[in-house]
Amino acid sequence: MTQHRIALIPGDGIGAEVLPPACAVLDLVGKRHGLTFGYDEFDWSCARYLNEGAMMPADGLDRIRRHDAILLGAVGWPCVPDHVSLWGLLIPIRRLFRQYVNLRPITVLDGVPSPLRHAASGAVDFVVVRENVEGEYSEIGGRLNRGFPEEMAVQEAVFTRAGVSRVLDHAFRLAASRRGGITSATKSNGIVHTMPFWDELVAEYAARYPEVDCGQEHIDALVAKIVLDPGRFDVIVGSNLFGDILSDLAAAVAGSIGIAPAANLNPEGEFPSMFEPVHGSAPDIAGQGIANPIGAIWSASMMLDHLGHPEAAGEVMAAVRTVLADTAVRTPDLGGTASTDDFTRAVLDALP
Amino acid sequence: MTQHRIALIPGDGIGAEVLPPACAVLDLVGKRHGLTFGYDEFDWSCARYLNEGAMMPADGLDRIRRHDAILLGAVGWPCVPDHVSLWGLLIPIRRLFRQYVNLRPITVLDGVPSPLRHAASGAVDFVVVRENVEGEYSEIGGRLNRGFPEEMAVQEAVFTRAGVSRVLDHAFRLAASRRGGITSATKSNGIVHTMPFWDELVAEYAARYPEVDCGQEHIDALVAKIVLDPGRFDVIVGSNLFGDILSDLAAAVAGSIGIAPAANLNPEGEFPSMFEPVHGSAPDIAGQGIANPIGAIWSASMMLDHLGHPEAAGEVMAAVRTVLADTAVRTPDLGGTASTDDFTRAVLDALP
Ligand SMILES: CC(C)[C@H](C(=O)O)[C@@H](O)C(=O)O
Ligand SMILES: CC(C)[C@H](C(=O)O)[C@@H](O)C(=O)O
Repeated sequence: MTQHRIALIPGDGIGAEVLPPACAVLDLVGKRHGLTFGYDEFDWSCARYLNEGAMMPADGLDRIRRHDAILLGAVGWPCVPDHVSLWGLLIPIRRLFRQYVNLRPITVLDGVPSPLRHAASGAVDFVVVRENVEGEYSEIGGRLNRGFPEEMAVQEAVFTRAGVSRVLDHAFRLAASRRGGITSATKSNGIVHTMPFWDELVAEYAARYPEVDCGQEHIDALVAKIVLDPGRFDVIVGSNLFGDILSDLAAAVAGSIGIAPAANLNPEGEFPSMFEPVHGSAPDIAGQGIANPIGAIWSASMMLDHLGHPEAAGEVMAAVRTVLADTAVRTPDLGGTASTDDFTRAVLDALP
Repeated sequence: MTQHRIALIPGDGIGAEVLPPACAVLDLVGKRHGLTFGYDEFDWSCARYLNEGAMMPADGLDRIRRHDAILLGAVGWPCVPDHVSLWGLLIPIRRLFRQYVNLRPITVLDGVPSPLRHAASGAVDFVVVRENVEGEYSEIGGRLNRGFPEEMAVQEAVFTRAGVSRVLDHAFRLAASRRGGITSATKSNGIVHTMPFWDELVAEYAARYPEVDCGQEHIDALVAKIVLDPGRFDVIVGSNLFGDILSDLAAAVAGSIGIAPAANLNPEGEFPSMFEPVHGSAPDIAGQGIANPIGAIWSASMMLDHLGHPEAAGEVMAAVRTVLADTAVRTPDLGGTASTDDFTRAVLDALP
């Protein structure tokens, strides 16, 4: 019997509605594989901020530092500014736990139509590897002459050799374990200091991994190619900002942001990694019991994989695929009438 | 008789193949409208760089400063690094001629199928307004500890009140003259210094133009929405980098980067504005006479509009639309077998 301690952070809105399905799936698949999960739930959220003035307690990170992994629902709520909710919870976890790889698999699933005419299920299967702790998301910068005609703001993007190298290494390894292709997102024709540096490091890793076929595309051309020919990609690696843009675009290409999962990995296992659906807290449908739990369940499957249980992870995704391909059970965002519970039950029934 | 002096910069590759069609169309439509065009051609290009060590002569900008407009083909060639070709020609023209508005109209045309299932011709019609001279494309920044493990690069993005305000003003005016909708591309949840400043200025202009319905979207959500529901947009305004990404994505949604036009405007008319197709120099098909001239012809139509001849501009685009909708004449990039000349002749024939 292997026991894993999981920190649950439902967060806001539908976050609290999609984590219970993920846990139910984990518990059931765990039975077949000799795994048990102990969950500790934390109420860190915008609601907590409004009551107590902080998204999480001052020693929050210490309380989850020894957990095997973190499952997060969604962070953000209308009356709380994003810079409070995100920089008070999501971004510190990514940074202080050195989750420098953000991984987002993109697959067109049978039964979830892509908005693209030519993206048949099975034909699109790639992963966006995003640098997750430095780059364009930097607290360095500021404002001058506030309110005056000469007012200006500057923002520093910071790329370090160590920071870029470790995420490239992860991406090249991943490409080698898949179909052997990698595409680097750049913009060295316009962003003249950081992006040429990024390109140089990509060239170093391309030389180190001769078995990987490495190409690069400027971000503007790349977003166009993802729409015109998404089947050509295997692994796409990009900076914090480019990876963010590419992964949401790719989720749309796969038919819905509601089903996309994400892993925030600390590959060394020095700190817990965090798994979260890509969708937000969805105030418009929160509380109605109709949120799509696929993003959370898929994120849980990525967590199983990360914890060393690829077979269990595969069974979870096979069950989701079966429900989508063989039944009409779907939440409203995918055109169905099923509730979160209905869909979850169907997945549980489809597990071996 | 109105005479306009146009500076022609064919540039590289297919640039030289798509400008003659644009000029032929200008000359013919000009006849009906009492316009004549005098062209001065400049050989500024990567070929010139390889022969003479510079993309353009030192006094290049002085030679075209008094022209009424600039028509540019394409800049860039494989053995010349982008930072040489672009920062030696395209970007200085944009900056020193204060072409602070980059305008890219997006329309799904009858006869050019969109890769999106739900984007019928007529249903998608928006304009991307891109800030074109400051922001993320900045020469400020550099590299430290080159080659050592501590190596790092920093890049400053610089947003000024004056620079952002003038492009917002242009965008809000444009929205007011169209369907009255504007969407601002932001990322103030991740880019914490410059993007909140951008948002504040957008809010100022939203208050100044109460007749415009102003919304904002984070760039990651926005790229997804452009794919999932492109018909909802009227004017999208974004920073230099975001506008670049959005306009190429939008061109792909409209079916082909080969047909997209761009205007680099100095709205005050203090300096000439520049018109250029969005496509590049396309080394793979250069010299074969099969380049699609629509991007260049459409850019010429935007030039007519800018020079104060909206009727003539409309006739040009009507002719292009007629050829695409009523005939099978298409260049290979759109699935046809026509040459550049064939297509151009068809457009000339379709002009009134
Ligand atoms: C070539 C490049 C520097 C340029 C840009 O990013 O501005 C191009 O992509 C464009 O959009 O005109
Ligand atoms: C909410 C926001 C700060 C975040 C990001 O940009 O990192 C989100 O878009 C994501 O991708 O997880």
